[in-house]
Amino acid sequence: MSPLEIENTLRLHLDHLLPHHKIREVYEYALLPGGKLFRPHLVWSILSDLDGDLFLQSQQNRWSPHALLASAVEFHHSYSLLHDDLPCMDDDTSRRGKPCTHLVFGEWQALLAGDGLLNLSYQLIAKSKHPRGLELMRFFSWALGPKGLIHGQVLDLSLEMTLSLEQTLRTHELKTARLIQVAILGSAILTGHKDFSREKKLWKFSKLLGVNFQLIDDLSELAAPVLSEHEISVNPWLANPEMTSTQLQKQLQAFSSLAQSLKLLNTDKIVSEYYQKMLKIITPNQAIIEKHLNKKIDLAPVILLIQNFG
Amino acid sequence: MSPLEIENTLRLHLDHLLPHHKIREVYEYALLPGGKLFRPHLVWSILSDLDGDLFLQSQQNRWSPHALLASAVEFHHSYSLLHDDLPCMDDDTSRRGKPCTHLVFGEWQALLAGDGLLNLSYQLIAKSKHPRGLELMRFFSWALGPKGLIHGQVLDLSLEMTLSLEQTLRTHELKTARLIQVAILGSAILTGHKDFSREKKLWKFSKLLGVNFQLIDDLSELAAPVLSEHEISVNPWLANPEMTSTQLQKQLQAFSSLAQSLKLLNTDKIVSEYYQKMLKIITPNQAIIEKHLNKKIDLAPVILLIQNFG
Repeated sequence: MSPLEIENTLRLHLDHLLPHHKIREVYEYALLPGGKLFRPHLVWSILSDLDGDLFLQSQQNRWSPHALLASAVEFHHSYSLLHDDLPCMDDDTSRRGKPCTHLVFGEWQALLAGDGLLNLSYQLIAKSKHPRGLELMRFFSWALGPKGLIHGQVLDLSLEMTLSLEQTLRTHELKTARLIQVAILGSAILTGHKDFSREKKLWKFSKLLGVNFQLIDDLSELAAPVLSEHEISVNPWLANPEMTSTQLQKQLQAFSSLAQSLKLLNTDKIVSEYYQKMLKIITPNQAIIEKHLNKKIDLAPVILLIQNFG
Repeated sequence: MSPLEIENTLRLHLDHLLPHHKIREVYEYALLPGGKLFRPHLVWSILSDLDGDLFLQSQQNRWSPHALLASAVEFHHSYSLLHDDLPCMDDDTSRRGKPCTHLVFGEWQALLAGDGLLNLSYQLIAKSKHPRGLELMRFFSWALGPKGLIHGQVLDLSLEMTLSLEQTLRTHELKTARLIQVAILGSAILTGHKDFSREKKLWKFSKLLGVNFQLIDDLSELAAPVLSEHEISVNPWLANPEMTSTQLQKQLQAFSSLAQSLKLLNTDKIVSEYYQKMLKIITPNQAIIEKHLNKKIDLAPVILLIQNFG
C-alpha cells in the first residue's frame, strides 16, 4: 500500500465515523496529514508476507479487516500523541511540524478528540466482523491498556523509566513496542490461520522491532545541537551510553536473526527503509551526538548493524 | 444483585486488569466506592426481566458476559467523570463527596487513569467471548464515541447545549442517555435472543429513561440555595422553565406507557427507587427551586408523575 492510499483510507474512515459538526476539524488536525505511518505500513506488509492472495483482495476493499486494523493502529497512535502533548503531560508545543492540537483548538477540544480517537480505534476493530475479531480485541485492549501502553506512559511521566536501563527498556517495550506488536500480530491474527509457533516468533520479532525503534529514535534525538530538559532527563544514551550501545547491538543482532528465520520480505523492506531514514539523521551528525554523550564512545558498530539490515 | 456484590465485582475486575504498581491507587480512587451504580443495576435488572434462568446462572459467575458488561458501563462512566472534572474541562473540585482525583494525585495521573478506564471498558467486553460480542462492541463504541457520549461532551463544553431546549435534550441524549442505553440494550443483546421489535422498544425506553434522568437531575440541582455559574449557564430549568416542565411531563408519560407495554418489573423497581431518591431532594426544597426559577411555575404535575411511577 502506498502512503497516499493509507492516508486516503484514514480520511475515509474518519469522515464516516465523525458527526457533522465543526469538531471534525480538531480530529482531522490531530490525525492528518499522517506522520511516517509506520504502524499501518506494518499491518499491510505482514499481510502481504503471510498471505499474498488475501493481501490483493483486502487492499481493494477499504472496509476489509486489515484496512480497518491499519486505521485503528494509526488512530490509536494519534490519540496517545494528542494526550502526551497536553500541558499536564509533556507540555509540548509542536508535533509533526505544526503546532500541537491543544495550542490551536484549546485543551478541552484536544482532550476530547483524544478520547474520541481512542474510542474510534475500538470501533474500527469492531467493524471488522472477523471470526477472530473478539480475540484481536482482547489482545488490542490488553496491549494498549493499563498494563500496556498506558503503563509505559505512567513509567515515563513518573520518571521511573530513568532509574535504570532495564526500566527504560521496559518503558520502551510498553510505550512503543506494544502498538507495533498490535500492528504485526494483529495483522497475523486477521489472516485467519492460527499458527502458534509463528505467532510466538512474531511476538518476539515485533517486541525487538519496537524497542530498537525507540532506542534508535532516542539516538537520533541527540543530533539536535541543543537538547530540551525533558530529553536530557529521559534519554538512556545520556545516562548509560556504553550499556545502551551494547544493548542495542545485542538486540539488533537478535532481531536480524529472527527476521532471517521468519522471511518477511515486505516487512523487512519497511523496516530497512525506516532504518535508512534514521541513519540520514544520525550519520551526518555523529560528531554532535558524541559531544552530547560527553565521553568518547564508538557508535560505528551500532551504525553498521543498522546499515546492514535488509 | 446487591450494591455490595456489584462493587465487589468492580473491585475484582479492576484488581485483575491493573499492573502491580502504585498507580493502582489512582484507578481505585476514581472508581471506588461506587456512586449510585445505576448503570450496572440496569444491566442486571434487564437480564432478570428478560431471562430469569440466565440471570441466576450469570450472577454466580463474576466473569459472565453480564458481569463484565455491568463493570464495563461503570468503568466507562468513571472515565467520563474523571475527564469531565479536569481543569481544562469543567474544573470541578469534588465528586461523590470527596476531592476530585486530579486534586489528590495530580492532573497527569487523573488523565491517564481516565484513558486506562476507557480502555478497560473495552477489555471487559472483549473478555466476554459471547457470540454477539462483536455486535455489542459495535453498539458500545458507536454509542460512546465521537458521534455519541463524546459529542454530548462537545455540545456541553462549547455551550451549544444552551442554545435551545432542543439542543439541551440532544446533549442529554448523547451525554447521559447513550450509556444508559448501552446498559439496557447491551444486556438484552447478551441474553442472546434476537428480537428486533423488543430491541426497538428498549431503545426508546432507555433513551427516554436517560433524558428524563438528566432533566430530573437538573431539577434537583436547583435545590441548592446557591448555584454555581456553570449550573446557571447550562440548566434548562432556568432558561426555559415552562417548556422544560412540559417536555419532561410529556416524556414521563411516554416512558410510563412504554414501561407498561414492556413489563420489565425489576427494571421498573430500579427506576422507581431512583425517582424516590430524587423526590427526597426535590419535594422538601420546592420553595428554593421555585425561587431560582424566578417566575411562579407549578412543579406539582411533574412531581406527581415522578411519584406515581412504579
